Amino acid sequence: QQNGQAQDLEDPWQDEEYFGSYGTLKLHLEMLLDQSRTEAYRQVVLNNRDFLRDKVVLDLGCGTGIISLFCAQLAQPAKVFAVEASSMAHYTRQLVKQNGCEDVVSVLQGRAEHIQLPHKVDVLVSEWMGNCLLFEFMVEAVLQVRQRWLAEGGVMWPSSAALLLVPCQAHSYYTESMSFWKNPYGLDFSPLQPLAQQEFFSKPKFSHILEPHNCLSVPSVVLNLNMYTLTVEDLEEMAGQFSFCVNKPGDFHGFCAWFSVGFDSRQAGGDAVELNTGPFSEPTHWKQTLFMLDSPVSVQQGDSISGSIVLRRNPAWRRHMSVTLNWTCRTGTEDDCKASSVGTKTFPMWR
Amino acid sequence: QQNGQAQDLEDPWQDEEYFGSYGTLKLHLEMLLDQSRTEAYRQVVLNNRDFLRDKVVLDLGCGTGIISLFCAQLAQPAKVFAVEASSMAHYTRQLVKQNGCEDVVSVLQGRAEHIQLPHKVDVLVSEWMGNCLLFEFMVEAVLQVRQRWLAEGGVMWPSSAALLLVPCQAHSYYTESMSFWKNPYGLDFSPLQPLAQQEFFSKPKFSHILEPHNCLSVPSVVLNLNMYTLTVEDLEEMAGQFSFCVNKPGDFHGFCAWFSVGFDSRQAGGDAVELNTGPFSEPTHWKQTLFMLDSPVSVQQGDSISGSIVLRRNPAWRRHMSVTLNWTCRTGTEDDCKASSVGTKTFPMWR
Ligand SMILES: [Ca+2]
Ligand SMILES: [Ca+2]
Repeated sequence: QQNGQAQDLEDPWQDEEYFGSYGTLKLHLEMLLDQSRTEAYRQVVLNNRDFLRDKVVLDLGCGTGIISLFCAQLAQPAKVFAVEASSMAHYTRQLVKQNGCEDVVSVLQGRAEHIQLPHKVDVLVSEWMGNCLLFEFMVEAVLQVRQRWLAEGGVMWPSSAALLLVPCQAHSYYTESMSFWKNPYGLDFSPLQPLAQQEFFSKPKFSHILEPHNCLSVPSVVLNLNMYTLTVEDLEEMAGQFSFCVNKPGDFHGFCAWFSVGFDSRQAGGDAVELNTGPFSEPTHWKQTLFMLDSPVSVQQGDSISGSIVLRRNPAWRRHMSVTLNWTCRTGTEDDCKASSVGTKTFPMWR
Repeated sequence: QQNGQAQDLEDPWQDEEYFGSYGTLKLHLEMLLDQSRTEAYRQVVLNNRDFLRDKVVLDLGCGTGIISLFCAQLAQPAKVFAVEASSMAHYTRQLVKQNGCEDVVSVLQGRAEHIQLPHKVDVLVSEWMGNCLLFEFMVEAVLQVRQRWLAEGGVMWPSSAALLLVPCQAHSYYTESMSFWKNPYGLDFSPLQPLAQQEFFSKPKFSHILEPHNCLSVPSVVLNLNMYTLTVEDLEEMAGQFSFCVNKPGDFHGFCAWFSVGFDSRQAGGDAVELNTGPFSEPTHWKQTLFMLDSPVSVQQGDSISGSIVLRRNPAWRRHMSVTLNWTCRTGTEDDCKASSVGTKTFPMWR
C-alpha cells in the first residue's frame, strides 16, 4: 500500500484512517496537553471578547470542542457551530452540556463539505495545521467552508500562516542512523549504510526537536499564506525561495521546517496572537520537521545557502505531498565565489 | 480487524506484518543501540570461548547477524548457522562477508520450522524475548527448533527466563491520562474519563519507564521458565503467584512487569550472564510493561498485596495473549486484617 498507484485507490483521502484516528482520545489528549497551541486559541478569544459579542462562530474540526467552549465561556457569541467529522462528536456534545453551554454551542457531526447551517457565520476558527503546515490538507476543508459559509467581511482564525525553514545541524540523528554502522561493537556494518540512507533520509523526519544551537542561520519565511484569499487550487503547488547567511561554522546536515500562524484582532487595541512552532518558541506537539541531505556539507561562518522549496500535493493521495529542496552552498561572495556545492532532493511526505 | 474473530482470520500469526517489520532497519537499529541487550550476548560468547571451540551454533532470528558474528570473531566455532525469516537476511549475508566470517557463518533465510541443517547443533542461541517476556511468541519457534535440531546435551542461550512483577505508583501517567480531564483550562471534561479508562487502562502500557522510587515493594519472580524443558503446550497458559509486602506509603496504581534471562556458562569457572530488563538495571529497549488498575488504592508501609497472574495465549491470534491479575490488598496481618480490597482485571495484549 506504501506505493499504491492512483488507479487502484479506493479512498485517496484515506478518510477512514484519518477520521478513525481522531475518534480515539489519544490524539485529542496530545493536542490538549499542548499548552502553546491551546492557550493561543484561548488568548484569541480573550483578546476579541467584545468583538465576539452576538457573533456567529463556526469551529471546524472542533475535536473535544475546546475552542467552542472558550468562545461560549469567555465571550458572548450568539451561536457557535462546532463541527466534527469523527465519532468524538458524540462526546463533544456531552462536554458542551457538562459545561452548561448547550444553548450557545451546537455540535454538528459531519464532514465539512456536507454541513448545513441556517445562515452564514461571522467567524471561521479552526486548528487545521499539520506537519510542515499543510500535511494532511485539512486546510482544504477550511477553504471550502470559508467559500460557502463565511459572511462577507467575516473573520478567519488563523488569519495567516507561514512556513519557515532553516539550514541545520543534526549530529545525533546523523550519528545514530548513519555513522553507527561504521563500527558497532567492533564490527563493520557499513553495507547497511545505503539501506539506512533510504530508510531514514529519503523521507522527512517528523517530530524532530531542533535545538536552537543547531540552527546554522536565522530562519526564513518561505511561504506566506493569506487565509482570506488562499484557494484550494493554490494548494496543488506552492513554491518559495530562501537565501541564508551561515552564522557559525558547522555541519550542514539538512533543513528544518515548521510553521507559524497569526490571528488578527478585530477589536480596537486588541493584540494579534501568534502561534509559532519553531525552535525559539515554547515546544508544541508538532515539534519540527527535518529534511536530511544525503551527506553533510561542512560550512563556515559567512557562507551562503540559497535555493528554493516546492510543496507539491500528491495528485492521488490527497492528504500527502512531496517537498522538493534545491540548494546552492557558497563559500565567499557570489561574485568572488571560492567554492560551491549544489544539491536537490525530493522528499515524499508521506507517499 | 482489532476485534477480528478466529474463524475469519487469514493469518492468525500475522506473519506478513511481523516479518515485514523486521525487514526494515529501524527495529534492528533499536536492538543494536540497546547496549545492555547486545553486550549481554557478547559477554556470553566471551565467557564461553573455550567451550565454543569446534562447536556448531544455531542463531535463530539472527537479524543483522550480530550474535553469529560475535561467535565467529570472539571464539572458534566449527560452524554458525544464522537463521533469519525476514528480508534482512540478504543484508546479513553481506555483513558476514564484510567481516570476513563467510567460512564460519552460513546465513539461511527461512522460517524456523522449515530450516534444513546437515546435522544437529551444539548451541541454540536466540534473542526471542518480547514485552512481558512472551509477547509475539517467538519463543515457540525456539522450542520447535530445540526439539528438532539441538543435539543431546546441547546448550540453550538463554538457559532460563523469568517474569518479574511489582506493585507500583504511576502518578504522572495517571494524572496525564485520567486526572487531566477534571479541569483542563477551567473546563469540566470529566465525561471523557470512562473513555480514557477504556483507552488507556484496559490494555497494558508498553514502553513504560518505571522509576525505582515508584516501586511499592521488592519485585518478585512470578514465572520461571527452564528453556531446556519448557514445551510449546506450556505456553498456552502460564500462572504464577505473588505476595508483596508494601515497603512505603503511596498510591497503588498498578503492576509493572519485566523479564530477566540467564545464560549458563558451560566452561569451568565461566560466569553465568544475566540480562535483566527491570527498573534497577540499565535501561533496555524493552523498558517495562505497566498494568493499570481502574482506580488507585492508597497503601501503607506493611500492607500486603497478594494474588496471582495468568498469561493466556490467544487461541486465535497466536502472537497475542491476555494477562489476568487477581489481587487482594490487606492492611494489618492476615489474621488481624483491618481492611482489605480485592480486584481482578484481564488485559488483552494486544488482542
Ligand atoms: Ca492538527
Ligand atoms: Ca525481540
